[in-house]
Amino acid sequence: MSAPKIASSLAPARPSIPPARYGARLAAARATASELGIAALLVGVGADLQYLTGYEAMPLERLTMLVIPAAGPMTLVAPRLEMTPARRCPAAAGAFVQVVAWEETEDPVSLVAGLVRSSAGASAERRPRVAVSDRLWASFVLRLQSALSGAQFALGSDVLGELRVVKDADEVALLRLAAQAADRVIAQIAAGRLVGRTEAEVSREVRERLVAEGHESAQFAIVGSGPNSASPHHEASDRVVAAGEPIVLDIGGILGGYCSDVTRTLWVTGGDPSGGPDDEFLRLYSVLRAAHADAAHGVRPGVPAERIDAIAREIITAGGHGPHFSHRVGHGIGLEGHEDPYLVAGNDQPLRDGMAFSVEPGIYLEGRYGARIEDIVVCASDGPDLLNSAPRELLVVSGL
Amino acid sequence: MSAPKIASSLAPARPSIPPARYGARLAAARATASELGIAALLVGVGADLQYLTGYEAMPLERLTMLVIPAAGPMTLVAPRLEMTPARRCPAAAGAFVQVVAWEETEDPVSLVAGLVRSSAGASAERRPRVAVSDRLWASFVLRLQSALSGAQFALGSDVLGELRVVKDADEVALLRLAAQAADRVIAQIAAGRLVGRTEAEVSREVRERLVAEGHESAQFAIVGSGPNSASPHHEASDRVVAAGEPIVLDIGGILGGYCSDVTRTLWVTGGDPSGGPDDEFLRLYSVLRAAHADAAHGVRPGVPAERIDAIAREIITAGGHGPHFSHRVGHGIGLEGHEDPYLVAGNDQPLRDGMAFSVEPGIYLEGRYGARIEDIVVCASDGPDLLNSAPRELLVVSGL
Repeated sequence: MSAPKIASSLAPARPSIPPARYGARLAAARATASELGIAALLVGVGADLQYLTGYEAMPLERLTMLVIPAAGPMTLVAPRLEMTPARRCPAAAGAFVQVVAWEETEDPVSLVAGLVRSSAGASAERRPRVAVSDRLWASFVLRLQSALSGAQFALGSDVLGELRVVKDADEVALLRLAAQAADRVIAQIAAGRLVGRTEAEVSREVRERLVAEGHESAQFAIVGSGPNSASPHHEASDRVVAAGEPIVLDIGGILGGYCSDVTRTLWVTGGDPSGGPDDEFLRLYSVLRAAHADAAHGVRPGVPAERIDAIAREIITAGGHGPHFSHRVGHGIGLEGHEDPYLVAGNDQPLRDGMAFSVEPGIYLEGRYGARIEDIVVCASDGPDLLNSAPRELLVVSGL
Repeated sequence: MSAPKIASSLAPARPSIPPARYGARLAAARATASELGIAALLVGVGADLQYLTGYEAMPLERLTMLVIPAAGPMTLVAPRLEMTPARRCPAAAGAFVQVVAWEETEDPVSLVAGLVRSSAGASAERRPRVAVSDRLWASFVLRLQSALSGAQFALGSDVLGELRVVKDADEVALLRLAAQAADRVIAQIAAGRLVGRTEAEVSREVRERLVAEGHESAQFAIVGSGPNSASPHHEASDRVVAAGEPIVLDIGGILGGYCSDVTRTLWVTGGDPSGGPDDEFLRLYSVLRAAHADAAHGVRPGVPAERIDAIAREIITAGGHGPHFSHRVGHGIGLEGHEDPYLVAGNDQPLRDGMAFSVEPGIYLEGRYGARIEDIVVCASDGPDLLNSAPRELLVVSGL
């Protein structure tokens, strides 16, 4: 079977993270841990490991763990079976970390605890502080707590949060590529047949096109038609798309390790001039459009994260739809689809140059219809840098 | 774009878990927790939650957590945004659990801690024992430990392990369906073109076919050709498959919530009579085939898990390949691709009627080639029930 026939407009040369960058990130992580009095930073499989080593390890019951002690060599502990990819990762290939295999019948938690104790022993702390990565499984956390009894446990984000939340130019370039690829998929779906197909069929097409446009994988493909457009986390159902209703498309994947996430709202006419959006929807959409524009343009260094949420919320509330905007305005994005900073009431952390996040207000009239507009925005020194460029107006299409 | 044109031989009626089963599982979990003196079982997103409630929640930074106290109502705590799917899950629809939403600016960990404290208060324990599901993220574990300071934390598998490790007839039926679907994909790939295509292309075809044959999603599609067949966890590379070499296919997905996982080894001749397997490979394969057969047929209730590993290892060692069988012989399978029981030296737990696991010996000559045979086997009262039925002989194919 051949791959789906979809023309790809992927650019030939793709930016990437230079291998030496992992050395710099590891050094920065150790320096921050040291400032915080953390004797060892223990990083399991996930985005933190990828950030520090470039290693995209599979999440397995067999422990893989990067051990960053306050001093001495950093060690990537991995099962024997995973030695080939572990040794190939940029941090190992660049000799920034040493790689130690554990055998099928060994206990890797004892191995990690031994590494922590031998380095913490030097500092002679009675209750050393140990940080574990935020996504580490409880099965590993509790075993480490037992093997390192007496240690105080903290979260890895205390160390890595400040580093990961600010994206460098290469990371922004990858986020932009991912955003542009997702934008092309929005355009393709808007130009294609929609009427008479199920949401699930359209969703499958979205996933195939995300990959065809250069994503390593499609992560989600929300297709909410008619009343389902009023359900923000609706996925895709067997409902058949009809003429004369809206569709919310909220789609994303991973490209070069970085996430895309874009939402556009279409209105499907079925080619019938009388099948266009009704006045209430047009009013709703124009409130939403203004809220999105003002929130996005409010982004600049120093503005509290919650202020962006408030800007959108004030406009939507003034437009009579306050209770219909039921979620925060945005979330950070990078190696993970949802990460710091969260743009939500109560988060007064100031935006900083290089932060990347979604701005995605929505208005949902339960049981009837709804709309959302989402872009990924980077906070640049001089204001917002919108990575998506798909048109933000209501996309009125025939769907035939 | 239409779906890939692949004929599906999926059976029309699919077995499923009856909704009342979730009530029985919840009651059993509470009874076991009570026997262990556990004041509350806290279950985050993942297979444990799916097992107890039927809820396949997305892993999100927003906490979703099932709270099972020693007495009183069980509560599914979920973000407001996820109320629709949370309320629809069988355990909620059947009123076995109550559903409580937390709002976007609330702290869900405080909410959970309050539920635990109000129920533990009744038992007047000074240091209540609290169990958290094994896959819960450290970010939630440490926050719960802080909010419930004084509590002793244990792993959810202490409670749920004994329940989940034995599959009931409906679960076995789903595992069998998944295995049969994966078997069909093996047959399709063996019958198709291989020579001149990259491993990655073949791997993509495997993933598409797993879905076409009824899987909700493809989870992995290892295609190891030539020297890559000697790397057990090789994924799929840009290497082009040539005539006169083996391919290890190790593929799996999720069907009806349950996992498939099958491995077969092909030899690609390119249609050339002289391109068949050499004598050394044939000897290696015949040792492997005997090891697989004897290990699988050694399965019956009461046999220690490690004994199945030993049976395979003894035969492979006697065949001169002991050092080339570098991993355990198998892992449990069910809602998760890898779960208890692990068939590995050191695990002397006796096999029980209803346990399901892989039996997958392999022989790997690094840098040259290798082979593996894997079936999913259920331990039935009268011996092994092999869920896969794809031929286990070396599949010599033209690959044209």
